[in-house]
Amino acid sequence: MEILGGPLFAVAGAGESHGPAVTSIVFGCPPGLWLDRAQIQAYLDRRRPGSNRHGTPRHEDDTVVFLSGIYQPDHAALLAGPSITLDTNPPQHTETYASGYSTGEPIAALVLSTSKKSAHYEQFAGESGAVRPGHTDLVKHYQSQGFVDFRGGGRSSYRATISDVVGGSIARLFLQAQFGTFILSSICQVGELTAQRSLSEHLFALHQQFAPNPIPLAALQALQTQLASAEIWTLDTNFADQAGELIKQIRIAGDSIGAAVEVVAVNVPALLGEPLYNSLKVRLMGVLGGLNAAQACEMGAGLQAVSRLGSENNDPIRNTGYQQNAHGGLLGGITTGNPLTARVSFKPTSTINLPQQTVQKDLQEIDFALAKGRHDPCVGVRAGVTLESRMAIELMNAVLQHQASRVHTADFNLWQNQP
Amino acid sequence: MEILGGPLFAVAGAGESHGPAVTSIVFGCPPGLWLDRAQIQAYLDRRRPGSNRHGTPRHEDDTVVFLSGIYQPDHAALLAGPSITLDTNPPQHTETYASGYSTGEPIAALVLSTSKKSAHYEQFAGESGAVRPGHTDLVKHYQSQGFVDFRGGGRSSYRATISDVVGGSIARLFLQAQFGTFILSSICQVGELTAQRSLSEHLFALHQQFAPNPIPLAALQALQTQLASAEIWTLDTNFADQAGELIKQIRIAGDSIGAAVEVVAVNVPALLGEPLYNSLKVRLMGVLGGLNAAQACEMGAGLQAVSRLGSENNDPIRNTGYQQNAHGGLLGGITTGNPLTARVSFKPTSTINLPQQTVQKDLQEIDFALAKGRHDPCVGVRAGVTLESRMAIELMNAVLQHQASRVHTADFNLWQNQP
Amino acid sequence: MEILGGPLFAVAGAGESHGPAVTSIVFGCPPGLWLDRAQIQAYLDRRRPGSNRHGTPRHEDDTVVFLSGIYQPDHAALLAGPSITLDTNPPQHTETYASGYSTGEPIAALVLSTSKKSAHYEQFAGESGAVRPGHTDLVKHYQSQGFVDFRGGGRSSYRATISDVVGGSIARLFLQAQFGTFILSSICQVGELTAQRSLSEHLFALHQQFAPNPIPLAALQALQTQLASAEIWTLDTNFADQAGELIKQIRIAGDSIGAAVEVVAVNVPALLGEPLYNSLKVRLMGVLGGLNAAQACEMGAGLQAVSRLGSENNDPIRNTGYQQNAHGGLLGGITTGNPLTARVSFKPTSTINLPQQTVQKDLQEIDFALAKGRHDPCVGVRAGVTLESRMAIELMNAVLQHQASRVHTADFNLWQNQP
Amino acid sequence: MEILGGPLFAVAGAGESHGPAVTSIVFGCPPGLWLDRAQIQAYLDRRRPGSNRHGTPRHEDDTVVFLSGIYQPDHAALLAGPSITLDTNPPQHTETYASGYSTGEPIAALVLSTSKKSAHYEQFAGESGAVRPGHTDLVKHYQSQGFVDFRGGGRSSYRATISDVVGGSIARLFLQAQFGTFILSSICQVGELTAQRSLSEHLFALHQQFAPNPIPLAALQALQTQLASAEIWTLDTNFADQAGELIKQIRIAGDSIGAAVEVVAVNVPALLGEPLYNSLKVRLMGVLGGLNAAQACEMGAGLQAVSRLGSENNDPIRNTGYQQNAHGGLLGGITTGNPLTARVSFKPTSTINLPQQTVQKDLQEIDFALAKGRHDPCVGVRAGVTLESRMAIELMNAVLQHQASRVHTADFNLWQNQP
Repeated sequence: MEILGGPLFAVAGAGESHGPAVTSIVFGCPPGLWLDRAQIQAYLDRRRPGSNRHGTPRHEDDTVVFLSGIYQPDHAALLAGPSITLDTNPPQHTETYASGYSTGEPIAALVLSTSKKSAHYEQFAGESGAVRPGHTDLVKHYQSQGFVDFRGGGRSSYRATISDVVGGSIARLFLQAQFGTFILSSICQVGELTAQRSLSEHLFALHQQFAPNPIPLAALQALQTQLASAEIWTLDTNFADQAGELIKQIRIAGDSIGAAVEVVAVNVPALLGEPLYNSLKVRLMGVLGGLNAAQACEMGAGLQAVSRLGSENNDPIRNTGYQQNAHGGLLGGITTGNPLTARVSFKPTSTINLPQQTVQKDLQEIDFALAKGRHDPCVGVRAGVTLESRMAIELMNAVLQHQASRVHTADFNLWQNQP
Repeated sequence: MEILGGPLFAVAGAGESHGPAVTSIVFGCPPGLWLDRAQIQAYLDRRRPGSNRHGTPRHEDDTVVFLSGIYQPDHAALLAGPSITLDTNPPQHTETYASGYSTGEPIAALVLSTSKKSAHYEQFAGESGAVRPGHTDLVKHYQSQGFVDFRGGGRSSYRATISDVVGGSIARLFLQAQFGTFILSSICQVGELTAQRSLSEHLFALHQQFAPNPIPLAALQALQTQLASAEIWTLDTNFADQAGELIKQIRIAGDSIGAAVEVVAVNVPALLGEPLYNSLKVRLMGVLGGLNAAQACEMGAGLQAVSRLGSENNDPIRNTGYQQNAHGGLLGGITTGNPLTARVSFKPTSTINLPQQTVQKDLQEIDFALAKGRHDPCVGVRAGVTLESRMAIELMNAVLQHQASRVHTADFNLWQNQP
Repeated sequence: MEILGGPLFAVAGAGESHGPAVTSIVFGCPPGLWLDRAQIQAYLDRRRPGSNRHGTPRHEDDTVVFLSGIYQPDHAALLAGPSITLDTNPPQHTETYASGYSTGEPIAALVLSTSKKSAHYEQFAGESGAVRPGHTDLVKHYQSQGFVDFRGGGRSSYRATISDVVGGSIARLFLQAQFGTFILSSICQVGELTAQRSLSEHLFALHQQFAPNPIPLAALQALQTQLASAEIWTLDTNFADQAGELIKQIRIAGDSIGAAVEVVAVNVPALLGEPLYNSLKVRLMGVLGGLNAAQACEMGAGLQAVSRLGSENNDPIRNTGYQQNAHGGLLGGITTGNPLTARVSFKPTSTINLPQQTVQKDLQEIDFALAKGRHDPCVGVRAGVTLESRMAIELMNAVLQHQASRVHTADFNLWQNQP
Repeated sequence: MEILGGPLFAVAGAGESHGPAVTSIVFGCPPGLWLDRAQIQAYLDRRRPGSNRHGTPRHEDDTVVFLSGIYQPDHAALLAGPSITLDTNPPQHTETYASGYSTGEPIAALVLSTSKKSAHYEQFAGESGAVRPGHTDLVKHYQSQGFVDFRGGGRSSYRATISDVVGGSIARLFLQAQFGTFILSSICQVGELTAQRSLSEHLFALHQQFAPNPIPLAALQALQTQLASAEIWTLDTNFADQAGELIKQIRIAGDSIGAAVEVVAVNVPALLGEPLYNSLKVRLMGVLGGLNAAQACEMGAGLQAVSRLGSENNDPIRNTGYQQNAHGGLLGGITTGNPLTARVSFKPTSTINLPQQTVQKDLQEIDFALAKGRHDPCVGVRAGVTLESRMAIELMNAVLQHQASRVHTADFNLWQNQP
């Protein structure tokens, strides 16, 4: 089932890349969280292709509307979202939710698709349709016995991650309201270019400065603004400029390039995570490293841990916390309160404009060149907000799971609530 | 999580009774099933309040549109569903799916709400709002810490069962195409009036007539037409007329009345169901007996089995099948191929127009009379299609689960599929 | 998967009726609950065949040993359970846990089987083996493609419910410690004999007497002692005697008879249960009505609700609680704090000593009489503790689920816990 | 819940590092797989500490006994496993299963613990107990509110992975019988020493040699023998010797060192995996990268993909298959039939014999040195069989999941099976 997170907080997603809409249902948001459509829209805007100059030039508005799970007694404010009209006879019409408190029931969100140019995809139709190297065309064709929507990658398309961001936005609003938790990401490598400033190091320094208190929100928001203002989302503006230029050259050459992204949560509640099979490490490695085009996921010291001695890698502990962050915020898959740090490595975008050897779906060998279509030369550059969202969803689920083990009798009262 | 069925075939639902829409996502439909929006709409039309003269007079169109998970190469036919327009600036517009083959990916369906009369609900607002006896008002208020949408029952409203019918429709189309499975229901009791013709007995006789072959589809469709043509959905027209009159009198009196419904599947694939904790009996008892307003669920002989001797109740077996159906199609929670029979008992509708003793949400005692609002005096009469849908969803899930235990190496070929 | 309850509190079970052991793993017990092996053993003793004079004469000790998930610093007391020896070379030997606090990690429990008389089962072997009417022999044979352990019913055997009782015992210890919750059951019908005193009515009267405070534990324990002292587990000693005599006569006749059981929880925490698809009603109907040999499950007013008017069936509300219990403790599938009441109807035991028409597994028709073997003429009489256990497991899971929606920031502290 | 894999094939585990036993229940093995205790024992022997000279010197026999889910008509052969005796009065005694066919019901396995030396752990007791750097001591103490079994890491201990290997052994026996699938692993790095021969490259070359046919079993078994015969499990004997010497020196120094492991499956069935949120990539990244002490997981080209161009990284396709394996056997998280390749990086063992800065559980700062206890200087060296097992479990689950989408009507027959 297409469900991310769970069993307590999760998002269900539906909608293939070239279909009418991406539909999301968010489960498990506790009642009483204030939600404003504009806040969720802001995260979706970061995800959108074309949201920076290095993404695909395809323009998608990705306007989200909320259809359930929110309430406030001021009905005009509640229903101030974009209205929907269905061209039945007579037409059906409804307002949508703009803002309100979560009721605890499922929150449905809809994002319509408005820029389908399916004509681009004729060269992929039928048994003699071409298989794009690096794509799922071939396996999906046989897996579905030929019934796949061959125009795009179906749910394996990057467009499907709209649901990740919808669910993640709600999770991070909850986590921030409850714990001051804040999640940021940064491009740390494009091809062979590497950033000289590390987001995780910067945030660990901030963490140490304030520990055991949380990093103030203002400092984190300022950092977010700084990241957003660069050519690509990174603290190292020099790297940003070079990487931007590299991506541009590669696009012109019709080729593509890989990238790596750091994603870090700070002010993380401690004590989250189950022991072994559903540890938060298992969950985060899965959702971060399992994202489309990702080929690796590192937590904490990552690959560097292999060549270290234990005496170097064990983080000394003082009474305000851990004095290093080789463990990346997780010990035994349980949060320590340290910044939660991951690094995800992405392959170069599979779609390129250069000739390639491939087969048709009937396995006949062909030489292949893309007729036309969109081309996003560095998919990793755009992955940050999705990674942040996935981290938020898993953190949120783990928060609810931990709370479930601490039963407060007073939370089950009804009749004793008398005035 | 609001998910019915699973883990292989399931429907996720969102949307409270007075919200903008009910959103459904159907997971696990295998690729290659032909789906036509009109077929699903027909089932939804049966569920709709006002679809017969004994339901609530509120008129809801319940038009369903499909947003994902379907494909056919003829794009005009694929996209012939009602179009959707979002009044953003500029407006966003998309066609929706009308028909196609399932791709194997999630199928999203949207039903807008078009008749919100929220003004009716002012007497329920806030801490001094009235608690309707028999409703969830009080528990939802405290469960949600006051953040519930008090206008209706949220997801506990009958409107939420739109998702049941969407998921169930797809399940029954699959089961019919694959096995000839057909699911019918019939009102067998209203108040103290009982039907003299039993659907389950009638269908078992038909089953015996053709066993071990399936009952022909034409015979089942004729029976369905007969059921649909009565005053209420039953084989006993005399009972139908009397029950119709009883319901009318009770509505005039401002009161409500209970009812019982038989639901029966025939041409059921054998061997479905896990042993103990997830037996099909556990699953069906849960989803049928757990429906809103249901107070009891019986399978096979039901309550009558208590006063029987084993020598009476054990169904003799011959080489064409079981010669009785006390077991109701399930032994040890596994299907035998016999008709699957259940009987569900519903309480009278909680909403009545008579004065009642109740409290406000702050537990202050009041005498209560409904200001105004919709009133459906016999909710059981309308439950048939939802029960059929829930049975279909569980059968479908059990079919996929059983298939998973029979691995066919040829179904995993890719490279050997060469011409 | 053979898992009862979940996703937060659950028990996984393994072990067929004639295998070496029944193995149980209990997930989700919060840390800090004091557990004593003797308490769990006491519940298992009630479940055991031969534990009363109307069960099967087979003697099974059903000694439980605990292998994980418990701790106390006094290691001698911790490890005072029966020791286990494995006859490897050299032999392996370990003590088992006798008592301690739950650690929050999975609790494994083992019950060995010590009375296998498999020779009784030769008439069921192979393709020409007999199919016992009312049993799962035929469906299991074909479902497993002939690989079933034909000696018994596998996991569909009543012996498998040892895991239910292990999990249920831990759940009820937690619920009692936290909320004073107490669960009792009573036989209310055997064949056509019905008890004149209803457990649910008696307990609702007690509830009203003390509401909104809980019923004192002493009163409940006294009631339990009274139930345990009767010929069969019921408040009506006259009925108990008559039913005992009836069962004896039916056993002599080689036949069997049905029974019905009430199961009631009091001092139930309010606000438990999800809205629609995983409401506590769905869950309880499933696990109670889905138990082996059960044919029906009623909640609250049950079948009687059908013939009632809404004005009769709606329970009036005063500021100490509901003044009736037609709703049986659940509205919209959410607990109200009222006693949670269910009634489960069981068919007569399938195994009888009279001749019956059946088939061999190859579907050849035969006349059948049981060669020899155990015979429990009224399985319903023994089901009480299993029903109580299943109710406890679902309540416990719902408690944790509700708690998950009420996040307390202080429960996530680590570094602020400084002295 | 401590469940690995699922929802179709999974293993549930219980048992902390210093408890009486590790208990495992394997769900979802289809009926008819021949299982021999010796085969599963062989895999467990590889997992065992002390199974090679670089693991911890603690000797654990890890004898597995099977308690359910297996059958064969020859009862003497079925029950030829080690017998179990419980020292109750009178003692209880049972034989255990040695070999038979899976019945389709849960398979329970028990491994007793026989070398508890809990006295070593006194320095960790209570509020003033020391927190071992790099361990879960501190978070588990606060997570469990002090009720943790402080003697070891509970379920976060490496001993808990016995369940992984039990479940994985059954999965790989099924996969090998059905598809010829074979899973191997190899140490590729210890500290800064790297192996010059790559297992994944070697196996891809073999794959190409035979494609589209499977690699013959004999070749794979020969390779396995070669791996097993080296000083550590690797194809590069020179590296093995150097790494063995390095580990020895580090042990003498009281320190520890990291390592990296390749794990590769060949003859992998194609078409496995769900699209996005439960893609096989998500699942494998999670279970491999989430293993105790793992800090990174790479699939296919892994980190190297970042600095590649798309034109290099896209694997050309010919009619016998992919001509490179940058994609590591997964495209869009679905298997292509290519070797499935992962690389997992482990941190140095946290337990060292050198002085470290740490705190007590009450957060008081202390200087810490391990009193005594076991010390395994390079945990990565021993992780291979656990990684193989986890890969097998996820592959197995994905096989069943894919099969569920291909329904064969003939698999649901019962009455038509007449002679």
